[in-house]
Amino acid sequence: MLEVKTPEEVLRLIEKEFIPCGLSETVLLSEALGRVLAEDIKADEFVPDFDRSTVDGYALRAKDTFGCSDAIPAVLSLAGEIRMGEAAEINVPRDFCAYVPTGGAIPEGCDCVVMVEYTEDYGDGTIGILKPGAPGMNMIFRGDDVFPGKTVLKSGRVLSPQDIGALAAIGRILVPVRPHLRVGVISTGDELVSTDSTPGPGQVRDVNSPMLEALLKDFGAEPVNFGIVTDDEKLLKEKTAAAAENCDAVIISGGSSAGVKDAACRIIDELGELLFHGIAIKPGKPTILGKTGNKPLIGLPGHPVAALFVAKLFVLPLLAQLEGRKMRSWPVRAELAESLNANHGRMQVNACCLEEGDGKLKAVPVRSKSGLITQLAGADGYLVIGRDLEGLPKDAEVEVYWH
Amino acid sequence: MLEVKTPEEVLRLIEKEFIPCGLSETVLLSEALGRVLAEDIKADEFVPDFDRSTVDGYALRAKDTFGCSDAIPAVLSLAGEIRMGEAAEINVPRDFCAYVPTGGAIPEGCDCVVMVEYTEDYGDGTIGILKPGAPGMNMIFRGDDVFPGKTVLKSGRVLSPQDIGALAAIGRILVPVRPHLRVGVISTGDELVSTDSTPGPGQVRDVNSPMLEALLKDFGAEPVNFGIVTDDEKLLKEKTAAAAENCDAVIISGGSSAGVKDAACRIIDELGELLFHGIAIKPGKPTILGKTGNKPLIGLPGHPVAALFVAKLFVLPLLAQLEGRKMRSWPVRAELAESLNANHGRMQVNACCLEEGDGKLKAVPVRSKSGLITQLAGADGYLVIGRDLEGLPKDAEVEVYWH
Repeated sequence: MLEVKTPEEVLRLIEKEFIPCGLSETVLLSEALGRVLAEDIKADEFVPDFDRSTVDGYALRAKDTFGCSDAIPAVLSLAGEIRMGEAAEINVPRDFCAYVPTGGAIPEGCDCVVMVEYTEDYGDGTIGILKPGAPGMNMIFRGDDVFPGKTVLKSGRVLSPQDIGALAAIGRILVPVRPHLRVGVISTGDELVSTDSTPGPGQVRDVNSPMLEALLKDFGAEPVNFGIVTDDEKLLKEKTAAAAENCDAVIISGGSSAGVKDAACRIIDELGELLFHGIAIKPGKPTILGKTGNKPLIGLPGHPVAALFVAKLFVLPLLAQLEGRKMRSWPVRAELAESLNANHGRMQVNACCLEEGDGKLKAVPVRSKSGLITQLAGADGYLVIGRDLEGLPKDAEVEVYWH
Repeated sequence: MLEVKTPEEVLRLIEKEFIPCGLSETVLLSEALGRVLAEDIKADEFVPDFDRSTVDGYALRAKDTFGCSDAIPAVLSLAGEIRMGEAAEINVPRDFCAYVPTGGAIPEGCDCVVMVEYTEDYGDGTIGILKPGAPGMNMIFRGDDVFPGKTVLKSGRVLSPQDIGALAAIGRILVPVRPHLRVGVISTGDELVSTDSTPGPGQVRDVNSPMLEALLKDFGAEPVNFGIVTDDEKLLKEKTAAAAENCDAVIISGGSSAGVKDAACRIIDELGELLFHGIAIKPGKPTILGKTGNKPLIGLPGHPVAALFVAKLFVLPLLAQLEGRKMRSWPVRAELAESLNANHGRMQVNACCLEEGDGKLKAVPVRSKSGLITQLAGADGYLVIGRDLEGLPKDAEVEVYWH
């Protein structure tokens, strides 16, 4: 019998046992949002490709304005006006200046821009400068944003809207990303009927398949539904083998009765290698992990609430490991609205709602019997109580994972 | 001239000026992830529809086991075994018990389940109970999770994977959701060329259109690209009118030079009503909001960084208001890794990265000149410095918005 693992041991095991795939596919920039970058992105040009003004004002040489003030303006001749989207082809000799709009190109020889608010147009072809310029003032230099060879984004990053903006800036219209992971989803249990059926006596609808498929889609994986399998070891083995053949990972959920749990262990062991059976977490203990090649075979508890917590805490990090994805997410700190018991020698996970009041954020635990899915519907997230704690008092500071 | 509004005034104005749409469309449960619920969802049946066991054990009458112990077991006759997915049709008289697996139905007359670990099968048709039962122990009652009329999910909620699970549990395969908001996106500026072009002298690629379109998709809206419009007031007015006709909201970005800013104000005023011009925020001051009917006409700054912050802080809440969506998101608290200056009398927004070390989460500000999009690529989020602060010292506690 394999030992029950602690959550930390499970996460270390995932890193040790599974190798990030090196696969890459190319998508259009307009389809790249939320995808996982498969390579570092380096720029191969300058952005901007010219010195630009960051204000509406006059481009000039700073040294022509030293010492000027409201009382004693520096008077410069106007050489002309730069137009947006055009090269700065105006010749600006010493003691001359040129009008330049925000974003406009700076003429050669000029080294700063004085904002129009600090100037006076005398109307006779001369401009009074009321505040001295300093070299570089109100300018972005060529390549300030990006220069050839600069790493703009790192491999493993999940592309955000601002990353899409950065890729647009450097003209990257084709983006190398990880292929979507295909994840097979199998529900087991003689009591399960599909979502669109009306349960007969002793039956319940399959909650785990649609819930896990939604979770996988939300993560950016492609769920493949292998249906509901009754508690028949031969059939379950066939389905699991087919799923492992066709997918990058397989999740079997359910089979919470003792006989079926053993069957899932046997099947995983026969199809590949059983890594552990049991995580010291409540709810979620009867979790199984194995692998065939680099493909994880995951047995989740049948209780939807346990299945959800285990999927979020361990399955998503495992899929991220397969993709070489950097997971970036952080809990929010809140004050516990009611005391919570925990004395199981296991890490405990509790659904909660977040409520603002008196300038404080309160975490209100959702209390209900195990296996009730509606405790989660409407909840904002979950909090974790460490295995060494006997619970948490009211007003304790807790960290709530809400995403 | 309209006054510059504070961020709080802008958010209040949005609530006051725009009416949540009452529209609804029906989608399949498998397509409902991330959609905004258009009605409260009430159950019309019991879940579970029968009393269920939460453990593998023996269903019995608690009073038949009072006072029993390891030393003096209560000896009950075995009436039979309940099978998963079947009605509990076994007759269990007094002083009898029935084996029931986790999730199995409880036979009539039984009021609790004693875990198999606390029993002994004597092999002669009798079972020794070593620990007394208590009414309700290890059971979920009919309707414990859901009963007819119970509100399972509230209107305005963005459907999460667990909500999909709850809808599956009650057999809701058709879900009423808000239609996707169509948002027209227009970029203006003579210096702009499309992402797939190579900028000539004085030109830059349009960053705002692809970035804002990605942000809108991420939010769950449908962006409609109206292209790049040069600084031509007549053309811009035509495009804006066409976008307002076809969409639920219009975003014009760019036009940061003084003349074009005035043009955008005039256009919005002519097509509808100008609500304000300017938000006391840095970057992002030159933001314009108007409306035609209940459709917002939004003028965003041309700087991509300013456009992004204003879109996140004000445009997304505005779209949520139109949908009747409840926005649920919270910042993470971190320690500022370096001091930050701010003395503008305006709220200041700063991109930052989050780094873990010494058991602390540090917010490392991204420093760069305004308008640089790559300062955001790779950043984890942003923090806000209130308008009354002159900056923040190193180690100050800050709240980072990362999503």
